[in-house]
Amino acid sequence: MAEGSEAFTEAQVIAQLREIFASPDPRIEVGIGDDAAVVQGAKGQVMTTDMAVEGVHFRTDWSTGFEIGRKVTAANTADILAMGAVPDYLLVAVALTGTESMEWISDLARGIKFEADLAGAQVVGGDISRADQVVISIAAVGSAEKPILRSGAKPGDGIYLSSLTGWSAAGLALLKSNAPVTSDVMEKALSEFKSPTIDYGFDATGASSLSDISDALAIQAAQMAESSKVAFNFDLSKIESTSEFVELETLARKLEIDIWHWIFAGGEDHALLATGLALPGILVGEVIAGSGIKNLPAGVETITWRHFN
Amino acid sequence: MAEGSEAFTEAQVIAQLREIFASPDPRIEVGIGDDAAVVQGAKGQVMTTDMAVEGVHFRTDWSTGFEIGRKVTAANTADILAMGAVPDYLLVAVALTGTESMEWISDLARGIKFEADLAGAQVVGGDISRADQVVISIAAVGSAEKPILRSGAKPGDGIYLSSLTGWSAAGLALLKSNAPVTSDVMEKALSEFKSPTIDYGFDATGASSLSDISDALAIQAAQMAESSKVAFNFDLSKIESTSEFVELETLARKLEIDIWHWIFAGGEDHALLATGLALPGILVGEVIAGSGIKNLPAGVETITWRHFN
Repeated sequence: MAEGSEAFTEAQVIAQLREIFASPDPRIEVGIGDDAAVVQGAKGQVMTTDMAVEGVHFRTDWSTGFEIGRKVTAANTADILAMGAVPDYLLVAVALTGTESMEWISDLARGIKFEADLAGAQVVGGDISRADQVVISIAAVGSAEKPILRSGAKPGDGIYLSSLTGWSAAGLALLKSNAPVTSDVMEKALSEFKSPTIDYGFDATGASSLSDISDALAIQAAQMAESSKVAFNFDLSKIESTSEFVELETLARKLEIDIWHWIFAGGEDHALLATGLALPGILVGEVIAGSGIKNLPAGVETITWRHFN
Repeated sequence: MAEGSEAFTEAQVIAQLREIFASPDPRIEVGIGDDAAVVQGAKGQVMTTDMAVEGVHFRTDWSTGFEIGRKVTAANTADILAMGAVPDYLLVAVALTGTESMEWISDLARGIKFEADLAGAQVVGGDISRADQVVISIAAVGSAEKPILRSGAKPGDGIYLSSLTGWSAAGLALLKSNAPVTSDVMEKALSEFKSPTIDYGFDATGASSLSDISDALAIQAAQMAESSKVAFNFDLSKIESTSEFVELETLARKLEIDIWHWIFAGGEDHALLATGLALPGILVGEVIAGSGIKNLPAGVETITWRHFN
């Protein structure tokens, strides 16, 4: 948001956004422009919302509008995937401070559109407001033949991650360290912090339970274990043997930060955590009878909900 | 938000909200608590979102949490009604400053629930964030057999209001005037400003076009006329002959404000504006061939989109 404000009206912003979000999807009967959108729904409809606030969830000096747009959209589409569902439609409400350039606003919208395209979703409506901070609130609607809940894990199931967690936290640590970015691993961490790669291709068919890691692996695992009335028993040696772990470890050593903290207490990677038999992804442990999470790495203490974020 | 902050966690807030929003609706397979809600959708799905920001759309020293919750919810449900649809589900994302009391947060949630009940809608999910201002973003999903758009008005149709506009603007003027509230009409204006009464019972079946008055009667009428490629010809004498006009006029005289400005340029009443033959509500004019809006009251100039709000 380095650029100064230009004189443009809400109508001009809306016209620009309509152009960016225009979609030929035949399921959209009425898109942006009437009181509400009219779309073809599904019998099993999945709905979620996720809000991101400047200075809390993103910083405009750290990320471009495009990256911010992708990240907030991804937080929503990942929640739809986390139900074993397909993202269909998005509604986007944005509060602007009035100092943004039209270019930055368009960049934000193009980031939302880019991630929506990856997810197979269409932006069908929105709202623009004014606030002292940029606030982006997205609602996502998807469809599922058979939703996969957090509560279906059974003893004997394997525990799978669609990809290794910790990259987003590593990227944040790298940014805060001000260390020069000198490797592909560093680039990857930064990129994952700015706009996490969502595992849209992860096939969760047959999973007994499913969630996305929005808060932290330890938190979501504890929630799934509690919902399913089982225990999650991690096997750290399996995580250590992945190539992603080896990559991430080079960065952890350089920054002198505990890699396990990134992996288990990081958050915002939006990797999918699934239980079941012979699933794709990384096998990270086993569901057992009991309660809670077992064999957490030393130093990663019980993590509780953070206050308001 | 007079009360100071108490020590409570996001988990405690969520637990409280789950209790307030709990619903026995059999169409809700999964409500608040998983990654997303799972509900029964409809073939003709109607979707909208509306965001409200403290200091821009509401003031916590003017309205209670309950009133604010009702108002933001009503802005969303009115948009669903404005498509000739029925509100079914709501998603609520709220940013709090961290200084609110649990009581205020619960009051806000109860206001949302109260209005949702009036609309026949269920809150099925949400998100809580932190920001410097309270921001409430709601997304509403409804269903319609046959949506009614803004674009279907035809010459010869009557123009109908579900109820008189201007009450919300009158309430705001009254608040700003600091005049003592000494009559039922004053109470009504204040109440409509704080939480407008939505005409959930308005039967728009058979209407050729439909919208809700969120910005101003003159703006929405101009939009409908443009979408429908017709002109809207107002008949002020018909408006003047309603009992609501006579009531509102007593207040306009007292505050020495032009009543027509309230009615045509006010906004946030969320009355429904419909065209068609023999509809319920107040007949306020006729659709004619041509373009634009005709016979606006003297002094109500062409109103354009406001900048960012």
